[in-house]
Amino acid sequence: MESLLWKEIQEQPEIIRQLIAAEHDHVLRLGRELRGKNCRFIYLAARGTSDNAARYGQYLFGGINRLPVALSAPSLFTAYQTPPRLEGALVLGISQSGQSPDIVEVLGEARRQGAPTVAITNDGDSPLARAAEHVLLLGAGRELSVAATKTYTATLALIAMLSLALDDRLRPESLLPVVPWMETALKSEPQAQAAAERMADSSRAVVLGRGYHYCTAHEIALKIKELSGVEAEPYSTADFKHGPIAMAEGGLPVILVSYGTTFRREMEVLADLVRSQGARVLPLADELPGMQPADSWIPLPPGEPEWLTPIAAILPGQLLAFHLTRARGLDPDRPRHIRKVTLTH
Amino acid sequence: MESLLWKEIQEQPEIIRQLIAAEHDHVLRLGRELRGKNCRFIYLAARGTSDNAARYGQYLFGGINRLPVALSAPSLFTAYQTPPRLEGALVLGISQSGQSPDIVEVLGEARRQGAPTVAITNDGDSPLARAAEHVLLLGAGRELSVAATKTYTATLALIAMLSLALDDRLRPESLLPVVPWMETALKSEPQAQAAAERMADSSRAVVLGRGYHYCTAHEIALKIKELSGVEAEPYSTADFKHGPIAMAEGGLPVILVSYGTTFRREMEVLADLVRSQGARVLPLADELPGMQPADSWIPLPPGEPEWLTPIAAILPGQLLAFHLTRARGLDPDRPRHIRKVTLTH
Repeated sequence: MESLLWKEIQEQPEIIRQLIAAEHDHVLRLGRELRGKNCRFIYLAARGTSDNAARYGQYLFGGINRLPVALSAPSLFTAYQTPPRLEGALVLGISQSGQSPDIVEVLGEARRQGAPTVAITNDGDSPLARAAEHVLLLGAGRELSVAATKTYTATLALIAMLSLALDDRLRPESLLPVVPWMETALKSEPQAQAAAERMADSSRAVVLGRGYHYCTAHEIALKIKELSGVEAEPYSTADFKHGPIAMAEGGLPVILVSYGTTFRREMEVLADLVRSQGARVLPLADELPGMQPADSWIPLPPGEPEWLTPIAAILPGQLLAFHLTRARGLDPDRPRHIRKVTLTH
Repeated sequence: MESLLWKEIQEQPEIIRQLIAAEHDHVLRLGRELRGKNCRFIYLAARGTSDNAARYGQYLFGGINRLPVALSAPSLFTAYQTPPRLEGALVLGISQSGQSPDIVEVLGEARRQGAPTVAITNDGDSPLARAAEHVLLLGAGRELSVAATKTYTATLALIAMLSLALDDRLRPESLLPVVPWMETALKSEPQAQAAAERMADSSRAVVLGRGYHYCTAHEIALKIKELSGVEAEPYSTADFKHGPIAMAEGGLPVILVSYGTTFRREMEVLADLVRSQGARVLPLADELPGMQPADSWIPLPPGEPEWLTPIAAILPGQLLAFHLTRARGLDPDRPRHIRKVTLTH
């Protein structure tokens, strides 16, 4: 393939395998220490791809730890200088580069207020790592591609480990099943490529997901936008039905992320509805009755617990974005106008 | 105009004037009672247009009351049946119809857990009103248009009153300045119409805002999408610079919501940048140096405290969506595929 991005997509199963082994004891100890703080809610600060990882945290900390999750509004800390009081919060800052000044400021203020702070970053010497009391390192190696892939899945894995550790449920084998599942997910590349070619003529697309895969839908849409220039918009299927469904016609590609049984029936009904309006349905799913090969099915291997699946389900989505970019005559290694690190204040 | 939607847009200053008078004492008492509960954070449940009102609450409760705001993930309560623990939360459910089963379930579960619950709704007999301990009524009259306008601004006004009351700062005159400002904002209709005609040939657009006007950007984009079918996407300017800025070229209409001085310089720089990439800039602003009439300036009257301005700044945005819909040959009173009430579980 001779693409940096493609190579980094392929590296992911091995990076996650190593991360699980390398950080297990550390996260376990951190979880024990944080349990003593009696936190009532999580306060999460992130931007861009990291913000999509934060959406995973919203479901995971909520569903596993039963902790409400607030996504921070960083400008309250910076531009407005009216930071909220963070008593009772566990404050988590996510940034692969660790450079974003507003995320650093959220962690700095939280620490001044005495709240426990954890940074998730790929750079242990970054301002974010220095601002936080505790640092969890992604260990993803330097990410040379402008579009984040391996730092995204590594962030999800650390969030999952931290969530389990907060309930004293982290075991060496807890996350391991996801590694072979990621390897299998990479094998769906031919289908991802076929789907990419099928939607390459459209300058617009929507990506639908719900629950644990709300983050997957957001991250697939972001990769497609960043790399291919196609205006891909993510929606919760619930919000989509509230109004934006109006635009699902005239061959609009509708990528449906469906994994597990929780929302399968809802996804089926929605697929039928938007197809009847004239949209093109592209399912990225473990099983979706009524879907034909003509619908550009991108199979995901079934069987993992739903909360773990976002770490693997994003891989065919990354491959879809990669092939869509090439199919549109662009170079995935040279996305236009995007910078790796953006300093927002 | 002979349009239901246009008429409801015009009604808004009077509805807000009446709401401020009618609900003042009630909200004041509620604020006093809730202060005794010692809440540490706000837990907000909403969807669609109400979700954009919740975004306003995120900045207002954060900036004025210094309370972190968590936007709920309703499917944790319904599909997954793993609701978070809401100790220390003030739980707020927003739905003009009061019918959405998942929002009702969030309030019901919060009440079972003993958390204080407040419903903001236009229907005092709705399931949401019955589920909540306290009810704040929008008093907007029946909203006949499918697209929400007056229930949106009334929701913002009630959120602002509740926020002030929680700090014992609500006075009869607190919100009144916004009413004449809304009346003035309606007078920018010719400019909104000119801007609509200037962007009518594009099937895509982006709407940028930040801070207190992050909600305004989201709500303008939603109205444009629902009514005109144009794929308008909202972004925080900070997130936009992180990647999606790639697509701001080839005449893409970029609607910039800029009010007050906090982000004016950032908006100026961004306007220059996207214009140099080939985008069309349409400022909806009180002042933005360097902007010419050719940029389809939609003036907003300057002078109100920034936290109050979203209640008025949305009006030219609603008018823009209305005229864009007509300019594209569609009927704003008959948007396609949208229902007034969507029952999401």
